Amino acid sequence: MLTFYYAPGTCALATHLALEYAGAPYEAKRLDFKTNDQRSPEYLKLNPKGRVPALVTDRGVLTETPALLQYVAQSFPQAKLAPLDDVFLLAKVNEFNSYLCSTVHVYHAHKGRGYRWVDASDEAAIEAMKKKAPQNMADSFTMIEEQMLKGPWVLGERFSTADLYLYTLTRWLEGHAIDVKRFPKVADHKQRLEAQPQVQKVVALHKP
Amino acid sequence: MLTFYYAPGTCALATHLALEYAGAPYEAKRLDFKTNDQRSPEYLKLNPKGRVPALVTDRGVLTETPALLQYVAQSFPQAKLAPLDDVFLLAKVNEFNSYLCSTVHVYHAHKGRGYRWVDASDEAAIEAMKKKAPQNMADSFTMIEEQMLKGPWVLGERFSTADLYLYTLTRWLEGHAIDVKRFPKVADHKQRLEAQPQVQKVVALHKP
Repeated sequence: MLTFYYAPGTCALATHLALEYAGAPYEAKRLDFKTNDQRSPEYLKLNPKGRVPALVTDRGVLTETPALLQYVAQSFPQAKLAPLDDVFLLAKVNEFNSYLCSTVHVYHAHKGRGYRWVDASDEAAIEAMKKKAPQNMADSFTMIEEQMLKGPWVLGERFSTADLYLYTLTRWLEGHAIDVKRFPKVADHKQRLEAQPQVQKVVALHKP
Repeated sequence: MLTFYYAPGTCALATHLALEYAGAPYEAKRLDFKTNDQRSPEYLKLNPKGRVPALVTDRGVLTETPALLQYVAQSFPQAKLAPLDDVFLLAKVNEFNSYLCSTVHVYHAHKGRGYRWVDASDEAAIEAMKKKAPQNMADSFTMIEEQMLKGPWVLGERFSTADLYLYTLTRWLEGHAIDVKRFPKVADHKQRLEAQPQVQKVVALHKP
């Protein structure tokens, strides 16, 4: 049995979706960031980073979305969530997921969590980050639209965890006042995922 | 035959080391960031991100350090650069590499590349980021020292790509005026890697 910690509005949605698509036996535990659940002593003992997602397995705790996505795909290979039979294609999935994690998610975080990178009392610098975030998000989704998303899925015909992660971050565009329709392939990708029952079930659990 | 693009002082060192440890047949091509080689039309055709590392394979181009590290480990399994026989341990390697990529590297980048996240003319905000970078680097290396680096290697007894990546980012501490000796396990880890001929050979190619 796996125990999965998540909070609504976070990138934990991607791994939550992967667990659901995998048909994994798991219990989901929701943390409330408003009451700082992720900083409670009990949770910090599990995950000293004080973030989500975190997955408790019988061998220990795992964190970091790209690592979790491959872990779920490899643990439940019958769900075919990654091209495990093809080293190059698996690297393409990891390349895509790593870009979302280290570039797109980081762009997004500069909107609401600028205090990570400057003194928390420096309101002008935090405001300056907030101001540039939408442009950076739009630029990275332009690259995804034009260079990375082959269509209909990220890899082309093969569905993978990259699709679940892309969907998760596509949902953040609205908070930057960016209309997803500017990116027709991304918009179509989002719509097709939202038609799937697994997505509907998990997204309902992530309502604020 | 693989072609590997790198630039000195960048995270490309990690993948370069992995190729060397793997005994991979590869040609290394050095880009000069001072003359903006990474923005040349020829290079952008290969890698539209305009960054390094990039690895040209006979199936296409791969980027993003965590993806490249696993690709090299899986392509040359006899080198035992990742615990490919153990899904959980492989996830621990990916968790570690993902943390370096999306958190530690990003902290570091706020020292010299703040223009990515604010208007490039906002000197005060860029200065504010530069000022906090050393503290963030020290905090993340405290976490690595206390929670993540089991010793002697990241995973404990098993050497992996996580060690090559950690070594690469450890080298950046000096630029933040942080003495690696504050982190005894990390300092020992660095010293043991620097005694290895593969590291000496590749680091020499990365001299400014």
